[in-house]
Amino acid sequence: MDRPRHQGMAKNTNLRWRLPLVCLLWEVAMIVLFGVFVRFGAEADAHWEEEKREMNLTSDMENDFYFRYPSFQDVHVMIFVGFGFLMTFLKRYGFGAVGFNFLLAAFGIQWALLMQGWFHSFKDGKILIGVENLINADFCVGSVCIAFGAILGKTSPIQLLVMTLFQVTLFSVNEYILLNLLHVKDAGGSMTIHTFGAYFGLTVTRVLYRPNLEQSKDKQGSVYHSDLFAMIGTLYLWMYWPSFNSAISDHGDAQHRSAINTYCSLAACVLTTMAFSSMLQKKGKLDMVHIQNATLAGGVAVGTSAEMMLTPYGSLIVGSISGIVSTVGYVYFTPFLESRLHIQDTCGIHNLHAMPGLIGGIVGAITAAAATEDVYGKEGFIKAFDFTGVYQRRTPSIQGGFQAAGIVVSLLMAFAGGAIVGAILKLPIWGDAAAEKCFEDDIYWEVPEDEESDVYRMHSPDKPASP
Amino acid sequence: MDRPRHQGMAKNTNLRWRLPLVCLLWEVAMIVLFGVFVRFGAEADAHWEEEKREMNLTSDMENDFYFRYPSFQDVHVMIFVGFGFLMTFLKRYGFGAVGFNFLLAAFGIQWALLMQGWFHSFKDGKILIGVENLINADFCVGSVCIAFGAILGKTSPIQLLVMTLFQVTLFSVNEYILLNLLHVKDAGGSMTIHTFGAYFGLTVTRVLYRPNLEQSKDKQGSVYHSDLFAMIGTLYLWMYWPSFNSAISDHGDAQHRSAINTYCSLAACVLTTMAFSSMLQKKGKLDMVHIQNATLAGGVAVGTSAEMMLTPYGSLIVGSISGIVSTVGYVYFTPFLESRLHIQDTCGIHNLHAMPGLIGGIVGAITAAAATEDVYGKEGFIKAFDFTGVYQRRTPSIQGGFQAAGIVVSLLMAFAGGAIVGAILKLPIWGDAAAEKCFEDDIYWEVPEDEESDVYRMHSPDKPASP
Amino acid sequence: MDRPRHQGMAKNTNLRWRLPLVCLLWEVAMIVLFGVFVRFGAEADAHWEEEKREMNLTSDMENDFYFRYPSFQDVHVMIFVGFGFLMTFLKRYGFGAVGFNFLLAAFGIQWALLMQGWFHSFKDGKILIGVENLINADFCVGSVCIAFGAILGKTSPIQLLVMTLFQVTLFSVNEYILLNLLHVKDAGGSMTIHTFGAYFGLTVTRVLYRPNLEQSKDKQGSVYHSDLFAMIGTLYLWMYWPSFNSAISDHGDAQHRSAINTYCSLAACVLTTMAFSSMLQKKGKLDMVHIQNATLAGGVAVGTSAEMMLTPYGSLIVGSISGIVSTVGYVYFTPFLESRLHIQDTCGIHNLHAMPGLIGGIVGAITAAAATEDVYGKEGFIKAFDFTGVYQRRTPSIQGGFQAAGIVVSLLMAFAGGAIVGAILKLPIWGDAAAEKCFEDDIYWEVPEDEESDVYRMHSPDKPASP
Repeated sequence: MDRPRHQGMAKNTNLRWRLPLVCLLWEVAMIVLFGVFVRFGAEADAHWEEEKREMNLTSDMENDFYFRYPSFQDVHVMIFVGFGFLMTFLKRYGFGAVGFNFLLAAFGIQWALLMQGWFHSFKDGKILIGVENLINADFCVGSVCIAFGAILGKTSPIQLLVMTLFQVTLFSVNEYILLNLLHVKDAGGSMTIHTFGAYFGLTVTRVLYRPNLEQSKDKQGSVYHSDLFAMIGTLYLWMYWPSFNSAISDHGDAQHRSAINTYCSLAACVLTTMAFSSMLQKKGKLDMVHIQNATLAGGVAVGTSAEMMLTPYGSLIVGSISGIVSTVGYVYFTPFLESRLHIQDTCGIHNLHAMPGLIGGIVGAITAAAATEDVYGKEGFIKAFDFTGVYQRRTPSIQGGFQAAGIVVSLLMAFAGGAIVGAILKLPIWGDAAAEKCFEDDIYWEVPEDEESDVYRMHSPDKPASP
Repeated sequence: MDRPRHQGMAKNTNLRWRLPLVCLLWEVAMIVLFGVFVRFGAEADAHWEEEKREMNLTSDMENDFYFRYPSFQDVHVMIFVGFGFLMTFLKRYGFGAVGFNFLLAAFGIQWALLMQGWFHSFKDGKILIGVENLINADFCVGSVCIAFGAILGKTSPIQLLVMTLFQVTLFSVNEYILLNLLHVKDAGGSMTIHTFGAYFGLTVTRVLYRPNLEQSKDKQGSVYHSDLFAMIGTLYLWMYWPSFNSAISDHGDAQHRSAINTYCSLAACVLTTMAFSSMLQKKGKLDMVHIQNATLAGGVAVGTSAEMMLTPYGSLIVGSISGIVSTVGYVYFTPFLESRLHIQDTCGIHNLHAMPGLIGGIVGAITAAAATEDVYGKEGFIKAFDFTGVYQRRTPSIQGGFQAAGIVVSLLMAFAGGAIVGAILKLPIWGDAAAEKCFEDDIYWEVPEDEESDVYRMHSPDKPASP
Repeated sequence: MDRPRHQGMAKNTNLRWRLPLVCLLWEVAMIVLFGVFVRFGAEADAHWEEEKREMNLTSDMENDFYFRYPSFQDVHVMIFVGFGFLMTFLKRYGFGAVGFNFLLAAFGIQWALLMQGWFHSFKDGKILIGVENLINADFCVGSVCIAFGAILGKTSPIQLLVMTLFQVTLFSVNEYILLNLLHVKDAGGSMTIHTFGAYFGLTVTRVLYRPNLEQSKDKQGSVYHSDLFAMIGTLYLWMYWPSFNSAISDHGDAQHRSAINTYCSLAACVLTTMAFSSMLQKKGKLDMVHIQNATLAGGVAVGTSAEMMLTPYGSLIVGSISGIVSTVGYVYFTPFLESRLHIQDTCGIHNLHAMPGLIGGIVGAITAAAATEDVYGKEGFIKAFDFTGVYQRRTPSIQGGFQAAGIVVSLLMAFAGGAIVGAILKLPIWGDAAAEKCFEDDIYWEVPEDEESDVYRMHSPDKPASP
């Protein structure tokens, strides 16, 4: 199977001992750390009966579970089915797309519960978790799934696990800086999840640049049914994005408003994506790559501002613009990034997450800076931006400045972190494949000898037709 | 690519300027109209803190978001994944099925928020929206997705957008007449969504009759995996239908009851569909077309009565009958409609929505007419039918009469509207394809040159075997 | 089509009259029994307005619908999409997997509403149903879906309906013994659903042993895209399992805790499954069979204990172990069971449900036996185990003993019931196929003559290449 002619040496992609070692080592570490640190929060603990009285709650019906869990499940679907299937568009990398996304997300949520727990839910030496922690862990892993999109098909599962370990760590630090030190609002994660995740991933793929990648060019496309599988991912991301952006907003009107703004932005985004997809092709045909990806930019671009008083028409404007930017990005920027900047971005996360994420951060800063007591109401104003305690004297324009600072911090963290992690992943010990073997499930998966691959072989120039 | 021998002239299906123009024009119109009219309702507005006190609510936990949003998300999945994937059964029209459904629904929900808003949520010159408006917008678009089923594969995306514009408008007018003027109950939309949507679509496809459609007969079938993709749509529609029928019912027992009735009706429907699917084939084999569609008739047929005291066994009876009617329809009525009435109904919406919708309207009228204070309780009776204010003197039998009138109005609106809109869609400017090019994604989509289509070509009589 | 050379007689698989007869007969029976017995429970009844006052509820918002329905919908998806698509992995049995699962589940939930209703919701001669009954009916059917996994591809739909009738009956009896007589806790059904369902199915498939099954060996594998369809099932089961295990837990902390424990267990399970899948293959490649199935063992294995104070790290440990056991089972036990014990287990339910179910029962017994007032709080302790009334004097260790007894009872019911039902299914009247026709949709379904099957024929030794 190994044909080392294009490389100085044959790459060893047999992970028989390395992958199990990493998986088991890390799971043992998780068990030990969870044993030392993680306990149920009050509302998930059997002591709740006593605590409830202290918290002045009158019934089990007021448990936060009932106000967060439906949104949590929607987010959960986005991470595992949404991202997983969105990446199945490649003709022979569906197992890797769904399977490795499953692996890294399952590990990532455990590590995220710890990292985010230490920063946000640490009390008397214990991390106390509840449904909100589960949502945040999924969010954190979302940024890793985004980065995975840039390096899809070019990395081994071990590299993905190593990247997940570091990226979750950096995500949590960045999030802590933004939310706690800068007191920035970012409920849907335009900055913390999308901008950070995408530029992190783009930096990693830049460091891992493969000059000979055109050797696997025939496998970088889709087939008819792989494009339909990808649409499952697209639609679940699109439909549940209102839940994503509202999942950890304040209860009540903020959560309600986040869902509406996101719904509007996404609807508008579909129309401008279709318009530009058709307009930018000579024959006016629609391109599935755009429909699968750019239609989602509207969700990213209102990630920061959805819980603010962006208003429905503001959401339509933001969604419209982000659909255009994203589609134009697929047509013009992605080839440019690859040829000039040597950034090989398999899924085009620069168009779906990076640029819309920046738009989201900027829109959030502007919306915050433009806030007035008239628009939010006296109490609503204070509540929406949490201008209490030490932040009592923040004005909207100062808040807008801090929001903008949050974008810059996220970018810096992404570039620095991505460069370091990229360098680590470049070590020749992780079992990645040679360039001509990329985008091919056969390397890491037992692939059925099915009719399809027979036909595939028939039409593939350098393989014999018989099995 | 164009072979104009069967038609007087070659049809121009290049939409490079037309589709973008329509999409962008309409999105700009949406932005302007939303800017002028649409604002957040009280429970989504930051002023909520003040309004809450006026409404005598004690906490953010009582926000309607928590009582409607899970149902909304289920309905959302039905519209985008349910309808979208249900229509992927055609062997070479999966992109169009999922993609055009996505396009028209994304546009439709924006226009529906406006149209329904003007009729139902207009206050002091503004449309005030909340989660219930999102559900209603999805419902309205559901009727367009149904009509799309009749013309699937035979129309251009521009035609679909034009149809959506008109159909949403007419839907809203019809809904206003039924709910507000006739004071009819129709929570699950047997009349407003299914009867209206299906007969509208059937009228449109009648007007657009294509005499030479047998030229694309080889593409009107399914392939093995396209039938499995369609089952994703079927199952999501089936599973979430209890949410559909209960989504906008009154809080409490009405919503609870709607879900139970729908669950029962759908379960029964599966058994009678399977029975008749097997019975009506010479070899007793099951037909995927029936399983994909007729199993859903039970949801349609309790759309009006689900929130009434239909009772679980009543639901089983209605579900059983509708499964039989729908399956028989696929075997006998669809060919008849095509050959005799020149109604080319791609997905068989006459069997899945039109007939079961009529059954639903009739069952609703009977159930309403049979209501007694004994069955509903004194308070429950008034609450269930909202017999307050000017409707204080309505008796059940009068209500039954008005329910029946609702069916007739919906039918008239559908026929008249469908005829006019069909005539508009017949104009030769919308970029629809010639008959021999129907049911083929290649016209409006960049389709990957994959192995499958190679094989397809191999077996297709009039195409060369080599790519 | 029938080539009876390998069997003494040609099997008649034409179900034209038999399948409709069974379906219609049973649906009529359901209608009659529902008519006699089933009514709406208080919270779904229009009389609720009056009853609410008696129950001292202040508003419609406290209707149990709002606290159970989102979980119900997740469970519903698991039963119909989860189990249905998980079984589509076979190359030519996707219609049967999804379609027969749909059929048996739709029938099963009706019969389960009755059986479980008589045991648990019977009052004044009527079964009063609400959303919790719907969840329990889905649960009960889950055990039938599990058993279906063992006999997938080898039985006729009539056999499946007969099995469903008996298995639902036995399930309900077993559940009554465990929950009511032994006062055992089993919210996620490790014992009642998984252990019972799996050993029942394994016993049935043992009785139905087919010595010539290797004649259809070429159809027992997957193709590339069928493995991706199966991953849809896997992921929905995995994502929604926290809802499954918490759906009928007590409101408040118990439900909250169940979700967290299950989330943790499943995450850990993915890592150990991946580790062992790679480790047990010579070339270190991952096997889709393991990823599709063993990753779910963690949900099964905390089914009993999830609502207890298992703690997050306890869940990680249980999940890790079950992933290992399940993967090892696929590699070593399944071949052993087939060759030595003549247990032909198509989907490997022994690895996914039987062994993890036993682990779940044992972990539950241990966790119960180890409970202290210190860990649960004084009130929480009594509430968690419902140590009230006649169970006031139960100690944790006695409870642990009863939990263990629950495992034994479930096993005995499964073996005895499976043997009897297997014997009934062996009767030559149900229309099952000959061994060489197994795992082939063509027997019971109209299958499209598509390119794929053409190619399939091309490579299949004993079929002509032309259609």
